[in-house]
Amino acid sequence: MTYRAPVRDQMFILGDVLKIDQYSNLPGFADASLDVVEQILNEGAKFCEEVLAPLNKIGDTQGCQLSADHKVTTPDGFKAAYKTMVEAGWPAIGSEAEFGGQGLPAVVTLAYSEMSSSANMAFSMYPGLTHGCYSAILAGGSEEQKALYLPKLATGQWGGTMNLTEPHCGTDLGLLRTKAVPQADGSYRITGQKIWISGGEHDMAENIVHLVLARIEGAPAGVKGISLFIVPKHLPDANGNPGARNSAHCVGLEEKMGIHGNATCVMAYEEAKGWLIGEENNGLKIMFVMMNEARLGVGLQGLSQGEAAYQGAVAFAKDRLQGRSLTGPKNPDGPADPIIVHPDVRRMLLESKCLLEGGRAFLLWTALHGDLAHKSPDAEIRQKANDYMGLMTPVLKGFFTDKGFKIASDSLQVHGGSGFTEHYAASQYLRDVRITLIYEGTNGIQALDLVGRKLAANGGRAVMTFFAEIEGFIAENEADQALKVYIDGLRDTKALLQDATLWLMQNGLQNPDNAGAASSDYLHLFGLTGTAYMWALMAKAALGKIAEGATDPLYSDKLITGQFFVERLLPDAPAHLAKLKTGSATMMAMSAESF
Amino acid sequence: MTYRAPVRDQMFILGDVLKIDQYSNLPGFADASLDVVEQILNEGAKFCEEVLAPLNKIGDTQGCQLSADHKVTTPDGFKAAYKTMVEAGWPAIGSEAEFGGQGLPAVVTLAYSEMSSSANMAFSMYPGLTHGCYSAILAGGSEEQKALYLPKLATGQWGGTMNLTEPHCGTDLGLLRTKAVPQADGSYRITGQKIWISGGEHDMAENIVHLVLARIEGAPAGVKGISLFIVPKHLPDANGNPGARNSAHCVGLEEKMGIHGNATCVMAYEEAKGWLIGEENNGLKIMFVMMNEARLGVGLQGLSQGEAAYQGAVAFAKDRLQGRSLTGPKNPDGPADPIIVHPDVRRMLLESKCLLEGGRAFLLWTALHGDLAHKSPDAEIRQKANDYMGLMTPVLKGFFTDKGFKIASDSLQVHGGSGFTEHYAASQYLRDVRITLIYEGTNGIQALDLVGRKLAANGGRAVMTFFAEIEGFIAENEADQALKVYIDGLRDTKALLQDATLWLMQNGLQNPDNAGAASSDYLHLFGLTGTAYMWALMAKAALGKIAEGATDPLYSDKLITGQFFVERLLPDAPAHLAKLKTGSATMMAMSAESF
Repeated sequence: MTYRAPVRDQMFILGDVLKIDQYSNLPGFADASLDVVEQILNEGAKFCEEVLAPLNKIGDTQGCQLSADHKVTTPDGFKAAYKTMVEAGWPAIGSEAEFGGQGLPAVVTLAYSEMSSSANMAFSMYPGLTHGCYSAILAGGSEEQKALYLPKLATGQWGGTMNLTEPHCGTDLGLLRTKAVPQADGSYRITGQKIWISGGEHDMAENIVHLVLARIEGAPAGVKGISLFIVPKHLPDANGNPGARNSAHCVGLEEKMGIHGNATCVMAYEEAKGWLIGEENNGLKIMFVMMNEARLGVGLQGLSQGEAAYQGAVAFAKDRLQGRSLTGPKNPDGPADPIIVHPDVRRMLLESKCLLEGGRAFLLWTALHGDLAHKSPDAEIRQKANDYMGLMTPVLKGFFTDKGFKIASDSLQVHGGSGFTEHYAASQYLRDVRITLIYEGTNGIQALDLVGRKLAANGGRAVMTFFAEIEGFIAENEADQALKVYIDGLRDTKALLQDATLWLMQNGLQNPDNAGAASSDYLHLFGLTGTAYMWALMAKAALGKIAEGATDPLYSDKLITGQFFVERLLPDAPAHLAKLKTGSATMMAMSAESF
Repeated sequence: MTYRAPVRDQMFILGDVLKIDQYSNLPGFADASLDVVEQILNEGAKFCEEVLAPLNKIGDTQGCQLSADHKVTTPDGFKAAYKTMVEAGWPAIGSEAEFGGQGLPAVVTLAYSEMSSSANMAFSMYPGLTHGCYSAILAGGSEEQKALYLPKLATGQWGGTMNLTEPHCGTDLGLLRTKAVPQADGSYRITGQKIWISGGEHDMAENIVHLVLARIEGAPAGVKGISLFIVPKHLPDANGNPGARNSAHCVGLEEKMGIHGNATCVMAYEEAKGWLIGEENNGLKIMFVMMNEARLGVGLQGLSQGEAAYQGAVAFAKDRLQGRSLTGPKNPDGPADPIIVHPDVRRMLLESKCLLEGGRAFLLWTALHGDLAHKSPDAEIRQKANDYMGLMTPVLKGFFTDKGFKIASDSLQVHGGSGFTEHYAASQYLRDVRITLIYEGTNGIQALDLVGRKLAANGGRAVMTFFAEIEGFIAENEADQALKVYIDGLRDTKALLQDATLWLMQNGLQNPDNAGAASSDYLHLFGLTGTAYMWALMAKAALGKIAEGATDPLYSDKLITGQFFVERLLPDAPAHLAKLKTGSATMMAMSAESF
C-alpha cells in the first residue's frame, strides 16, 4: 500500500472553505497565494510519499539502537532522509525569515506536517520537536540565544528536544527534582535524570539542543520554582559550531509499543552546562509555548495516522474479493465481490472519512486563527483568534487522537485477519498512534484543561464567541434548503454543548469533582460540535462550487460524507450530554479498595 | 503486577445470581455443588496465577520459532506448564466422563477458562482449540473416531486445530480449494495450503489432530461441496499411539501484533492422509459446532484480557502519586495523591469494571443455558436454552471483544506514558486482545449473523422469548424501590432494542443493505440490553444478601457499579438506535472510487 498525500482535499479547505487568499495583506500570506501553496504542497507530497513513507516500516522493524558509549543509531535510511529534508528546507518553511526560514503561515505548514506525519510519524517527530524547541527559544530566549540557536534549529541542522518528565514526575511537574547550580560565568550546572525524551540522542544532526526543566538551588518547592535551561549536546564554540561534548547523555532507550523509529531516551545530566532561558522560576510559562504548539501537533498526528491507516483500509477493501453484496453480485465475473460492497465495511470507512476530512478542516481552521492571532492588524481579531487557539488546543488534541486511534483500529478491522499480521501496515499505525492519546498531556489532562481553565478564562469569552459565530452562520444560511441537513445537525449539537456548558458552570464550581467527572464527555461533545461546524462550512463551499458548474466529484462527495457525519456521528452528542449530567456522585462513592 | 483470579465474583454469580445449586438433578451438576465448585475454582486460580501468568510476558517477548525442518519451539516454560496442566487434568474438566473427562457443567468450566485466558491468552489457546476439536469429533465423528481421538484430546495429551482459512478465502469459505482425493482404504489424500492455523505445530503435545475443511474431487462448487477431515500429524498406529509422520507441515509462522506465544501457522498438506468426519459435503455443519463454541470462547477472551488489563490499571492507579484531588489532598503526608482520586481515572476504571462484571454474568448466564440445552429433561427449557445460545453467541462475541479492546485501551491510558512502554503489561493486553475482534468471524460477521440469521430463525422466537423474560422480571420487581434505577435502565434500553428490532423487520427485508448498515449498532444495543438485564439480576441478588445481613462490601459495591453502568453506559443505547435508523442510503450513495 502506498501513501498518497491529500493535497486536493487540503487545497479545497485552504482555497474554497477558508479562502486564505483573502489574507494576502498579512505577513507571510503575501508569499502564499493559492497557486504557490499548491506547488509547495505538491513538492512536499513528493518528498513524503517517495522518501519518508518507504522508511516507515523499516523504522518500525529495526528501531533505534543504543551503544555502550551512549550513541544512538537510527534505522537504515533515516540519516539520508534527514539530510535530504534539511537540504530541501522542509523544516524551515514556517520559521521566521530573519532566522533563515521561509516564513509561511501556520495554516500552510500544518498541511505539510500532516503529510509528513502520515508518511512516517516516528521520523517526523525529530523535526517536529526541533521546531518546538525553536519556538520556545524564540518566545523566551535572549537576543544572543536566538542568534546562536535559532538559525541552526530552523533548518534542522541541529535537533531540539524538550525535557520535562522524571521517573516520579510526569503530569505533576511540581514534583521535579533535576537541579541547576549557578556558576560564576552566568551558566548553570544541571544534574538529574529525564525520561521519555523523544529524539534525545541520534545520529542525524550535528548537534542537539536540549530544553531542560530544572530547579535552581534554593528555588521554591512546587511549580513556582521551575526554570528552563538550554543544554546543548555539544557546547557551541566561539564561531557557533559544535564544540566540547556536554555531560548530557542517553543512558537508555525505552522498549515501546510503537514509534520504534523514534529514539525515546533516558537522559542523564551530570553537572551538564546549561543556560537559563528567560527569568528564574518562570520556566513552565516558556515551556508551555512549546507545549501548546506540541499539543496541536499531537492532535494532527492522531489524524495523520488515521489518514494513513484509512488509505490502507480503502485499498484493501477494493482489492479483497470475499462474499457477495447483499443485493446481488457486483462483480459477477469474479469469484466474489470486493468487500467495499458490504454496508458494514462502508460504515467503518465512512466513519473514518468524515472524521478525517472534518478534522483536517478543524485543524487548518484553528491553525489559521494561530496566524491571525499573531499577524492580524485588528486587535479584536487577534483577541478572538487567541481565545480560539487556547480553547481549541485541548479539544483538537483530545478528540482527534481518540478518533485517530478509533480510525486506526477500524482500518485494521477492515483487513480482517490480515490486519493483525505485520504484513500490512495496519498494525503499525495502530501501535504508533496509541502514544498520541498520552503524550504532551494525556487526553484526561486535556479535558481538565478545557473545563477547568480554558472555559473559564476571561469569563467564558472564548466559548461564547464561538457560540455566537455558529449562531451567525446558522442565521445566515438556514434559509438554504440544500444546507438543511448540515445546519440542523450543527444547531442541535451546539444546543447540547451549550446545555453542557451551563451544567458545568452550575455544578463544576460547586463541586470540582463534577467538572472532572464531566470533562472527557464534554471534550468529545465539543469536538463533535466543532466538526459539525466544519462540515456545514464545507457543505456550503461545495454547494457553491457545484452552483458555479464545477464537476469535480470531490464536491458532491463532500455532501455525502457530511451527511454521513450528521447521521452517524452526531447521535453520540446526546449520549455525552446524558453521561456528563450524571455527575461525580456514583464514581466517587466507590472506595479505592473496591476497584 | 500480579493477576488475581476473580473467584469471589464468579461465586457470587454462580451461587447468588444464577443459583446453580438448583440444577443438582441434572447430569454433571450433581458433582458441582457450590462448595465443590469453589474448591475447583480456587485450585484453578492457583494454577493460572502461579504457573500461567508468569509466562505471559515471556511468551510475548520470545514468541515461537520455526526451524528449517518444520518444528516449532514454544517460549521458555510453555512446555513444562503444558505438562503440569495435563497432569492436573484442567483441559478435561468439561469433557465427557466416558472419554476420560470430569463432566463438569459448561457454566463452571467457563469460569475456569476466564482465568486461564486472563493469565495467559496465547498459551490458553492451545487447550482451547483442542477442546473445540474434541467437540467437533464428538458431534460428528464415528464411534471408532471418537474412541480413537477423544480420550487423547480430552486430556490435552494430543493437541487439536481447526483449518478453515486459505490465502484467498477467509470469511467466504465457498472459495476454498484444498482438495481431498478418496483412497481405496476409505481414507483420503488431502492437498492444499491453510493459513492462520493457531497451534498448527508446537512442541508441547505428542500429536496434533488437524480438522481440515476440503473439497472432495468432483464435489459441488461453493459451500455445498465442503467436507471435514481428521488429519493427524502422526498417524495413529494399531494401538492408537502416534505412528508415522503425516505430510502435514508448518511451513511458516505469521508475524503478528500480539499473541506471540501462540504459533500461528501456515500449514502445507501434501497428499496428507485424512479421514472424513460425518458425511460428504456436510463439513461446514460440523465445523460450526466447533465454531460456535469457539465464538463464545472468543467473547470470553475479549473479557479476560479486559479483566487482566483492568487489574493492572487499578494497581497502577493506587500506586502512582501524581497531582492532588480536586477537592483537596487525600494523601496529605505524601508528595501527591494516588491518581485513583481523580474522577476521570475513576470514570475509565468504572466503565471497565461495570462491563467486566456485567459481561462475566452475561457469559456465565449463557453458558448455563448451554448446559440446559443439553441436559434439561424439559423440552421447553431445552428449546428456549438452545434459542438463547444461538441468539447470544454473536452478541457476546461481538460486544465483549469490542468492549474488551476498549477496556484494554483505557487501562493502558490510566498508566499514562508508562502504558506505552513494554515495561508494564498494558501494551501486551491491548495487542493480544485485538485479534479477538477478528478471528472466528469478524465482529461485522457476528453482527450480520445476528440480524440476518439469528433474529429471523423460527419467526423471531428467540428474541421474543428474551423480551418476554425481561418483561416478566420487570413486572415481578418494579415495585421494589431499591431496584428502581436498574429496572428503569433495563426497561428503557429494552424498549429501544424492541424498536430497533421492529425497524429491522420492516426495513431489512425490504432492502438487505439496511440490515447490513444497521447490524453493528444493533449488536451493540443488544449487548447493552443483555448487560442491563444482568445488572438488574445482580442488584437484586446483592440486595437480597444485604437484607439477609451480609456485610461483604462486594454486595454494596455491586449496587454502585450497576448504577454506574446505568448512568454512564446506557446513554449509548439511544445513540445506536438513532444511527441504525438512518439506514443504508447515504453509505451506499458513495462510489467505490470516492472513498
